[in-house]
Amino acid sequence: MATSPEARLKELGITLPTPGRPMAKYKMAVRVGNMIYLSGHGPVKATPDTPVNGRCGQDLTLEQGKLSARAVGLNLLATLRDQIGSLDKVKRLVKSLGLVNSTSDFFDHPKVINGYSELMAEVFGEEAGVGARSAIGTNALPGNIAVEIEAIFEVE
Amino acid sequence: MATSPEARLKELGITLPTPGRPMAKYKMAVRVGNMIYLSGHGPVKATPDTPVNGRCGQDLTLEQGKLSARAVGLNLLATLRDQIGSLDKVKRLVKSLGLVNSTSDFFDHPKVINGYSELMAEVFGEEAGVGARSAIGTNALPGNIAVEIEAIFEVE
Amino acid sequence: MATSPEARLKELGITLPTPGRPMAKYKMAVRVGNMIYLSGHGPVKATPDTPVNGRCGQDLTLEQGKLSARAVGLNLLATLRDQIGSLDKVKRLVKSLGLVNSTSDFFDHPKVINGYSELMAEVFGEEAGVGARSAIGTNALPGNIAVEIEAIFEVE
Repeated sequence: MATSPEARLKELGITLPTPGRPMAKYKMAVRVGNMIYLSGHGPVKATPDTPVNGRCGQDLTLEQGKLSARAVGLNLLATLRDQIGSLDKVKRLVKSLGLVNSTSDFFDHPKVINGYSELMAEVFGEEAGVGARSAIGTNALPGNIAVEIEAIFEVE
Repeated sequence: MATSPEARLKELGITLPTPGRPMAKYKMAVRVGNMIYLSGHGPVKATPDTPVNGRCGQDLTLEQGKLSARAVGLNLLATLRDQIGSLDKVKRLVKSLGLVNSTSDFFDHPKVINGYSELMAEVFGEEAGVGARSAIGTNALPGNIAVEIEAIFEVE
Repeated sequence: MATSPEARLKELGITLPTPGRPMAKYKMAVRVGNMIYLSGHGPVKATPDTPVNGRCGQDLTLEQGKLSARAVGLNLLATLRDQIGSLDKVKRLVKSLGLVNSTSDFFDHPKVINGYSELMAEVFGEEAGVGARSAIGTNALPGNIAVEIEAIFEVE
């Protein structure tokens, strides 16, 4: 397995999307010292099958939600690379908050957010790429996106 | 335009409310090094038209929600000044989490939270006053307040 | 009153549960410098009466929710001790985010989360054990747990 995150991305055949732009009065990320705070990101349309909008338990299955969460991860990685130049400068994923647009009787938020967390582990490895995390449901997300995730990374 | 946050507040004709007090077992803010973590704040009754309670998509319009979010910002600024003595000691807004009390079919949370974010930009400027941010909906907030926001600031 | 957190635990007759293990792709906690980020934790079955699952305003009363929040605190303390060896190394509780599984007409989230916050104050004292905090409602939590709390602690 390739040892650097950028090499791993290539190995995985992943091309990151164009970095997103703020849709309201905020920055995509703010750096303080070696910590980067990434704003809440939604999913990009990574593949034709990737759902961007919808509610788990109503419009989307667990697997579709998970695919959407992975697409949020791609979006976050695009922002992160845009901020620091190369993902090889990442020391570790510190903390993520993952929100799943869900009905009141959907309880598999951790499995949905795993779509994002497994991507991070693939790219940064099982130690640096697995961080502290909270996964929760909510009744409504901006623009009816399926998943929103914010994250803190430690960088060089 | 005035160059210091305190001078800008005067220029904008803004008088901050009396700093709030905890309504439960928490502190309004905790400082670690140069970072200040502000607790989740609700809106103050800044003007007769400012809604303090209610749900966007049901009781409140987007514009009313936005006014409420601005009033949360006034409340946060009052706490911040109370903690560090003067807003001129703020280096930057780092990260905010904005929660909008909303129905399941209300999707304009970013525009609502802009009421808060635009105030921060007015007071601290477009660079220091615009931070990373997540805006989300929730089905219930304490005391049925319209908006709750927590924030991290970097200070001198 | 005992002066160290570990001694206080004994004085209070509290035995911490076995530290939990991640139920998905995350770590229970990540340390960066002197800050420890604890993942979102749910309640342990601390006593026969402690509710682990259910929704406040529907399945659970405020008092039951509060008991559940205290049990989340026990779970967090177990993780924290497991990470740093002894709770005596805690400098302070910095920031908590408390989520209450609740109906849309339940508004007492701060009182519920006090179950957790009062435990922290008992163990670490009124200064170090009371931190910044946000308490909010949500329509759904993983596995239908009653309360989920994430926290940041400063440690030696």
